[in-house]
Amino acid sequence: MSTSMFGEPIARREDPRLLTGQGRYLDDLGRDALAAAFVRSPHAHARITGIDVDDALDVDGLVAIYTYEDLPGQVGDPLPLLIPHPALTHGRTGYPLARDVVRYVGEPVVMVVARDRYLAEDAAERIRVDYEVLPPVVGIENAAAAEHLVHDDVPGNVGAHLVQEVGDAPAAIENAPHRLEFRLDIERSASMPLEGRGVYARWDPDDRSLRVYSSTQTSTSVRMALAARLGLPKTKIEVIAPDVGGGFGVKVVHPWPEEVLVPWAARLLGREIKWTEDRREHFVAAAHERGQVQHVRVGFDDAGRILGLDVTILHDHGAYTPYGIIVPIVTSTQLLGPYKPGAYRVEFTSLYTNTVIVTPYRGAGRPQGVFCMERTMDKIAAHLGLDRAEVRAANFIQPDEFPYDQGLTFQDGRPLIYDSGDYPRMLDMIKELIGWDGFEAEREAARRAGRRIGIGLGCYVEGTGVGPYEGGHVEVDSTGRVHVATGLTSQGQGHQTVFAQIAAAELGVPIEDVTVTTGDTRRFGYAVGTFASRAAVMSGNAIALACRKVREKALRIAGEALEADPRDLEITDGVVHVRGNPSAAIPLRTVAVLSNPLRYAFDEEARRATQFAVGGSSDEPPVPAGEEPGLEGRDYYSPVRSTFASGMHAAVVEVDPDTAEIRILRYAVVHDCGRLINPRIVEGQIHGGVAQGVGGALYERMVYDESGQLLNASFMDFLMPYATEVPRIRTGHMQTPSPLNPLGIKGAGEAGVIPVSAVIASAVEDAEGIRIDAMPLSPDGLFRLRRRAAADPGLRVGRVAV
Amino acid sequence: MSTSMFGEPIARREDPRLLTGQGRYLDDLGRDALAAAFVRSPHAHARITGIDVDDALDVDGLVAIYTYEDLPGQVGDPLPLLIPHPALTHGRTGYPLARDVVRYVGEPVVMVVARDRYLAEDAAERIRVDYEVLPPVVGIENAAAAEHLVHDDVPGNVGAHLVQEVGDAPAAIENAPHRLEFRLDIERSASMPLEGRGVYARWDPDDRSLRVYSSTQTSTSVRMALAARLGLPKTKIEVIAPDVGGGFGVKVVHPWPEEVLVPWAARLLGREIKWTEDRREHFVAAAHERGQVQHVRVGFDDAGRILGLDVTILHDHGAYTPYGIIVPIVTSTQLLGPYKPGAYRVEFTSLYTNTVIVTPYRGAGRPQGVFCMERTMDKIAAHLGLDRAEVRAANFIQPDEFPYDQGLTFQDGRPLIYDSGDYPRMLDMIKELIGWDGFEAEREAARRAGRRIGIGLGCYVEGTGVGPYEGGHVEVDSTGRVHVATGLTSQGQGHQTVFAQIAAAELGVPIEDVTVTTGDTRRFGYAVGTFASRAAVMSGNAIALACRKVREKALRIAGEALEADPRDLEITDGVVHVRGNPSAAIPLRTVAVLSNPLRYAFDEEARRATQFAVGGSSDEPPVPAGEEPGLEGRDYYSPVRSTFASGMHAAVVEVDPDTAEIRILRYAVVHDCGRLINPRIVEGQIHGGVAQGVGGALYERMVYDESGQLLNASFMDFLMPYATEVPRIRTGHMQTPSPLNPLGIKGAGEAGVIPVSAVIASAVEDAEGIRIDAMPLSPDGLFRLRRRAAADPGLRVGRVAV
Repeated sequence: MSTSMFGEPIARREDPRLLTGQGRYLDDLGRDALAAAFVRSPHAHARITGIDVDDALDVDGLVAIYTYEDLPGQVGDPLPLLIPHPALTHGRTGYPLARDVVRYVGEPVVMVVARDRYLAEDAAERIRVDYEVLPPVVGIENAAAAEHLVHDDVPGNVGAHLVQEVGDAPAAIENAPHRLEFRLDIERSASMPLEGRGVYARWDPDDRSLRVYSSTQTSTSVRMALAARLGLPKTKIEVIAPDVGGGFGVKVVHPWPEEVLVPWAARLLGREIKWTEDRREHFVAAAHERGQVQHVRVGFDDAGRILGLDVTILHDHGAYTPYGIIVPIVTSTQLLGPYKPGAYRVEFTSLYTNTVIVTPYRGAGRPQGVFCMERTMDKIAAHLGLDRAEVRAANFIQPDEFPYDQGLTFQDGRPLIYDSGDYPRMLDMIKELIGWDGFEAEREAARRAGRRIGIGLGCYVEGTGVGPYEGGHVEVDSTGRVHVATGLTSQGQGHQTVFAQIAAAELGVPIEDVTVTTGDTRRFGYAVGTFASRAAVMSGNAIALACRKVREKALRIAGEALEADPRDLEITDGVVHVRGNPSAAIPLRTVAVLSNPLRYAFDEEARRATQFAVGGSSDEPPVPAGEEPGLEGRDYYSPVRSTFASGMHAAVVEVDPDTAEIRILRYAVVHDCGRLINPRIVEGQIHGGVAQGVGGALYERMVYDESGQLLNASFMDFLMPYATEVPRIRTGHMQTPSPLNPLGIKGAGEAGVIPVSAVIASAVEDAEGIRIDAMPLSPDGLFRLRRRAAADPGLRVGRVAV
Repeated sequence: MSTSMFGEPIARREDPRLLTGQGRYLDDLGRDALAAAFVRSPHAHARITGIDVDDALDVDGLVAIYTYEDLPGQVGDPLPLLIPHPALTHGRTGYPLARDVVRYVGEPVVMVVARDRYLAEDAAERIRVDYEVLPPVVGIENAAAAEHLVHDDVPGNVGAHLVQEVGDAPAAIENAPHRLEFRLDIERSASMPLEGRGVYARWDPDDRSLRVYSSTQTSTSVRMALAARLGLPKTKIEVIAPDVGGGFGVKVVHPWPEEVLVPWAARLLGREIKWTEDRREHFVAAAHERGQVQHVRVGFDDAGRILGLDVTILHDHGAYTPYGIIVPIVTSTQLLGPYKPGAYRVEFTSLYTNTVIVTPYRGAGRPQGVFCMERTMDKIAAHLGLDRAEVRAANFIQPDEFPYDQGLTFQDGRPLIYDSGDYPRMLDMIKELIGWDGFEAEREAARRAGRRIGIGLGCYVEGTGVGPYEGGHVEVDSTGRVHVATGLTSQGQGHQTVFAQIAAAELGVPIEDVTVTTGDTRRFGYAVGTFASRAAVMSGNAIALACRKVREKALRIAGEALEADPRDLEITDGVVHVRGNPSAAIPLRTVAVLSNPLRYAFDEEARRATQFAVGGSSDEPPVPAGEEPGLEGRDYYSPVRSTFASGMHAAVVEVDPDTAEIRILRYAVVHDCGRLINPRIVEGQIHGGVAQGVGGALYERMVYDESGQLLNASFMDFLMPYATEVPRIRTGHMQTPSPLNPLGIKGAGEAGVIPVSAVIASAVEDAEGIRIDAMPLSPDGLFRLRRRAAADPGLRVGRVAV
């Protein structure tokens, strides 16, 4: 393999197009389409007693109004429970349009189709839905108390309950020299992509087929779902993810009610219909994540080595569980990070509340898990009076212990076995980058200047590249262009760049000759989707494998044409040539012409490349057995298990002694995602992740009142960091190649966000000396905490032994 | 393989749809599209001196007018020479819109696009093209005389010249006991499908892709041509052949000028554009075939055995040679039929004339070749006073001589080797069917009643299933439906039926569960096309091979699920079960769910079939190396060489002694296309072929005047047989399976048409005692022939020895 492109920090190829406004996002499509709008529940919990659409019928331009009663057969069936799990004993999903009962504010009740969105909204406003309000269940503790039920047939509001154990953690804790017990609170947040959801469907009466554009993270699964629900063969449905303005997890859920209803109505009406989510809809009717309460018990020795860890998690999964219980499973397994906890027990209870559903958001349960583990480390260090980095180092899995089996079952149902890493070296790197060892002098200097600063640290391990598979298809056409396709989707990660780098390197062609298509079922029909930091690992390796097939075929055909042994050939700049003899050469574009026995001479080169139209006169068939015409190849990458990326972040923060304003002075990241395809893109992913993590650590929360109304459902009220709040980030790369895949790579998409809350909490705690046991931590929250800590010495750091 | 469906004469599955008007032909699509119309040359040969479009600009609804000068880059380049051949030393093709010189009446000069066809025609009529008329070359002998040239740079109007020889034919003839020499004349005819050509293109600005519907016999090659010409990657072009109302060869030519121009303009204008050929356009601007003059010299022994045969052919290929010289190559190789000619020499000269191009029409040169050989046989019999059947039998290749190498090179560039057949038995069968042996008594009885009847016979061998390949894709979906796709197109042959029969038999599923898609590049990207009686052989075998892959995969997965050895499993009615234990069973639809590790539970059965979403916990990857997700398979069939079907036809005709009206009293066919997939469809193909052959024998001709104007360019003037002219046909099947392909089949699409002119000529000659040396033979032609024969005893049968 040529490595000229692989590993180079080239600029993103998609940016010239996207940065000059030439992106084509969902709402850029279908300008003449009819528009859909939805009447949504204003109540968190209510029974529908009547729907009166009469007033809406006068709206000029109205095309159709649909309620649950109008949905035939499988169209109206409950949405699928995508990822069942034995522990999810009471999985429940909603209907595309509410039937009888609504269970969260924002649940769709009526769909309106009209000539444009304004008219559709006008008509929607005139529809009167009568409700009998039921008592809402809001908040984890209310759900657990189960005074009221979200679903009548789910006792205690408990959807799922799962315990995993390695060793006897309670006993290990009981017998440990030191013990701590504490509670952590993690609030809800959400993916909040700048582009919301959206779906645009058109029925082709000539072809009797459906084309659906969706701002989705999984076009192939949307197709599967639509095929099942609309009773169409999947051969008659094309699903395309156009440019997508961010996903971060929320767009992997499918099919959304709107994703079923818009295509169904488009087919029924024989028209084009589009629905673009507005911001308030995204807040109340898409999905949230993060909300957990954790109870931690830990036992450890004098060196801070954990001997037993027992974590009990209450997880809020909202009103339904279409995506199963992936989030708490990830929290409960991934919180172990780079550590060997001795005995470990984790128990979670996943609870129904009358709020919008909870599904994975970048990090997918890991920020909560890392918050738990890193808070634990800091508390141990404080308790023992040890250096926080030292306590972490004492618990590390060592470089010679890989593969390391944590003894648990991971989210993919496979054993949680770490493949590679070097945590001690990574700790040295992050300490160096942030200036850990010299910090006490720095703190002292700041103190003298009347400033209050602190330093914090957080470590994580992230299972990336979860299976079961992705595929790649690579074709070299007769102009020499290389067309790469993979089924998974893009939401701005830079796939056009990194997949092209892989193909260019594997094939020996200029990257300019490579185009990449993602998320288009017309080009690749089997895929899982883009989530779990899996795109580069899964599709990257699949594309590499497909390229190797193409390369092998190209060398074989070129060998025949050049009368050379394929083993003596190499490909440089798109030309196959004999090693050491550049004049014995044939361009790949000519090899492509030769690869199809149907050598119709559409251009002069093809004409020269062949003398006679069809076949030769040998006894070999024109397409030998086991071969296919065309210079193309397809392959799949399917891992035995996930690969495990790792990283450590550190921050120096300053807190204003009066206002409690929190400022991040320095931020450092060391990240190990195995072999780097493109360091610039990995850094971009990490920087974006840290920015999102800063939001999660300091600003973002979903504020529900007790009736289940989301009080901050707009960008005026839901705070996100601006560039001014995101620190400059110093990044160091480590590369411990994964032994599990041909390219030795690991995922990097979520990494940046995962430990930020833990790091900021660690640094603020260090600056303030006050226990930080909740995320996010806002300045006003810190202000209140200072007041409480002043009155309660138990809130001071280092005094929480049990 | 279950054979329950294979070989059964089931009714055509497409007919309920087609016979109730639910077909969707080209002109049924794109009802709102703009329309294109063409200004065509009114002269057979002229120089364009000016084009004035000013008057047309006033037409309301006009969108665009294009001349050659408006065509950028490769759009305006000469059309491709699709099938080059070393003997085609002076191949020439036209431009999409004429540049400077027009060379046949009907050549497109200007394209007009308007809101509808009426307006487009109105505008076209207002465009004034000034011409300087050049001397036209019309007719084979004028072309050969070369007093004027069609192309200035083609001396003698000779496009191609080719000689093939086996042994020393002139010497063999010279030394033979008997010799004959004569000339045969074959007029032009044409495919004349009831639906003409048509193309409908739409540019998708959202997707930056082009969809083209074309009434074509080769959608994949249209796509290749458009990709090359429009500079689009083929991934951005979809070409679909919708229902097609007959092709018979003319629609395999590509790209037609209109097929380039309509998509190009659709993209340029960002609009939908459609062009549907009208009947006059089809007569003058599509393609013709058949026109040849043959000079034959033959030497033979007392038993009528041919010792040497020397045929010289002048072939009229019209104004251009986009499709090369396939037609005269086929004539010159396939005229040998079931015979061993001893020494053989064939020479052809392919000539330019100022008439529309000549490309293959059902039979593709074979009717001319068989006319030549069978006329020769009859003349030998007459000369020796032998029975015509006996002379043929004396020359047959014997059953134990297969594979039989004729020593020539076939149209596919491969050796002309017959794979199987049994000509003596076939002769017995056809004599029995027509009543050959009792015919003299019948003739005598008729004579006594004042009636003049005759009997005739014709034999042929037809290379079918020409390569290089076709592919098949088969997918079983999670509802149990089987989706079969192949790249080649359908024009009414019954592919929906026979391909489904093959798949149902191979997979063990009910035929009702099978759907077949042809000619849609979205479903299958590589194909050659439907011509040369190749669809069943090529795609049929490819589909069978693909089914076998799917079956093997299904048995493997079912074996795991049932804990059974796959070798103990069989599939019946769509259910995999242990042989002899029907309770150990799993439906194919569940196997399909299991085949994709991404077992999202979209329905209850899928939910039951899997417990956990992604993967198991073994050390095997979810998609093992070399496998792919999904219960689907693709394979190609690529033959070493063609398979050779054969047949014999016989007819009893009555000629009116006064009016020379020719009536076919009885018609019999024995046909051998190897194993029969569906006897009813084979018979349908043969009956349709005979009907078309009767047209070619008695009615159809293209009447050009000396200026190159086609005088009978309408269905008022161009005669075709009605049902009243087509006799009831008695059909016998023989089956000598082809050893060359897995299903043992041979093609049947063209067979019916091939020998009809020879048979009718034989029978009329037998009735009249007058030499029939031309086809077609019309009643008025026979009337004139009688007058000439009365004056010239040399025209009487049996007096032509040299």
